[in-house]
Amino acid sequence: MSRDAERKAVVLLSGGLDSATVLALARRQGYACHALSLDYGQRHRAELEAARRVAQALGAVEHKVIALDLGAIGGSALTDPAIAVPEQPTRGIPPTYVPARNTVFLSLALGWAEVLGARDLFVGVNAVDYSGYPDCRPEYIAAFERLCKLATRVGVEGEDFTVHAPLIDMSKADIVRTGTGLGVDYGLTVSCYAADAQGRACGRCDACRLRARGFAEAGLPDPTHYQPDGGAGTTQQA
Amino acid sequence: MSRDAERKAVVLLSGGLDSATVLALARRQGYACHALSLDYGQRHRAELEAARRVAQALGAVEHKVIALDLGAIGGSALTDPAIAVPEQPTRGIPPTYVPARNTVFLSLALGWAEVLGARDLFVGVNAVDYSGYPDCRPEYIAAFERLCKLATRVGVEGEDFTVHAPLIDMSKADIVRTGTGLGVDYGLTVSCYAADAQGRACGRCDACRLRARGFAEAGLPDPTHYQPDGGAGTTQQA
Repeated sequence: MSRDAERKAVVLLSGGLDSATVLALARRQGYACHALSLDYGQRHRAELEAARRVAQALGAVEHKVIALDLGAIGGSALTDPAIAVPEQPTRGIPPTYVPARNTVFLSLALGWAEVLGARDLFVGVNAVDYSGYPDCRPEYIAAFERLCKLATRVGVEGEDFTVHAPLIDMSKADIVRTGTGLGVDYGLTVSCYAADAQGRACGRCDACRLRARGFAEAGLPDPTHYQPDGGAGTTQQA
Repeated sequence: MSRDAERKAVVLLSGGLDSATVLALARRQGYACHALSLDYGQRHRAELEAARRVAQALGAVEHKVIALDLGAIGGSALTDPAIAVPEQPTRGIPPTYVPARNTVFLSLALGWAEVLGARDLFVGVNAVDYSGYPDCRPEYIAAFERLCKLATRVGVEGEDFTVHAPLIDMSKADIVRTGTGLGVDYGLTVSCYAADAQGRACGRCDACRLRARGFAEAGLPDPTHYQPDGGAGTTQQA
């Protein structure tokens, strides 16, 4: 095994389409991947089960789920039942934005990386489709990467961390094509903000619309499992 | 009430001596203080009860405790029972360092601040006594403050966050003198890494030694409640 093949990475894995693609990319680059999911009180809890399936299917070394009660902070449709998940596109930063979520998640990935001796973090942020989320932009990722060096024991000792965000400039269609080429089974993933207990998608929320359009634009069959009344999504299935 | 008097701040409150002092300083500056504690699987759980008492005594608007299983990551004597808390001073970064802890905690404070409409975060990091902790240095705090602007909705909209670390250059004696002048009852606080269920201090760990020396150097009585076999600390009590 080459030295590269032994390098460890922490991969943030939500169980959605994007992070599954990132895990496949990190594996293809030869990283031993330690997948990290957060059980943060999200509405779409079927994601966590999907993350487990994806980690196994794509050959992660291990999959860790950390419990964190982000619902205590509130402020997002994803963690506060009193805030509705929009069924139509919204202007500006959408109500599904979870305040400081990526900073919290990357911080935990950083902490685990330090314990593991990993120097590489992978995250599936995307600045194209989710341009409304501030913590999905390249300048944010660059700032977090700089912070890593100052925040950690190994950073102080002179080592650098790299925060890989390989999807950041890709369209959803590009992401779907890339993952399909790497053998990702997107039928295992759950992107929907309002998935049911079986992980079936609503077909109407922002995440469902973007995902369905991605498959359509890529000219690939959409393997998403939709709820019986799955709305827009079902009509876009191949 | 003046506009300043209405400004909200999120104050990270561990229940220890430093963060109690920070809360008193933030109150003195007129902030409406929202105190945040993390239940992160720390050994010294009596801290959380101390935080509740301190928040109340110092007039915080509210006190929130967020559960986060940092023990899942391990790597620190504070969260991993297999790693001993040192009873003698150590060289370099001590085993009580929790990987990326301040980044995780500040991220959560940032998320809550965004929900509350607060633009000020207060944290009791100190670069003098804990110079072994990378995430207690001024350059780290400055980097996190820059990140806040990029990470958040309000940052994107042009507003700045300020991360206040008023203790960063103070000795423990300075901190104790400052808090005493502000009326902090340090008998309510728990700093010990190995406090018992009643919050009584071991008198031997790093935190106990630093704290006892602070009171001694400040020439102030040490109100710490020590365990019956409280070792070094008890010998330094006034």
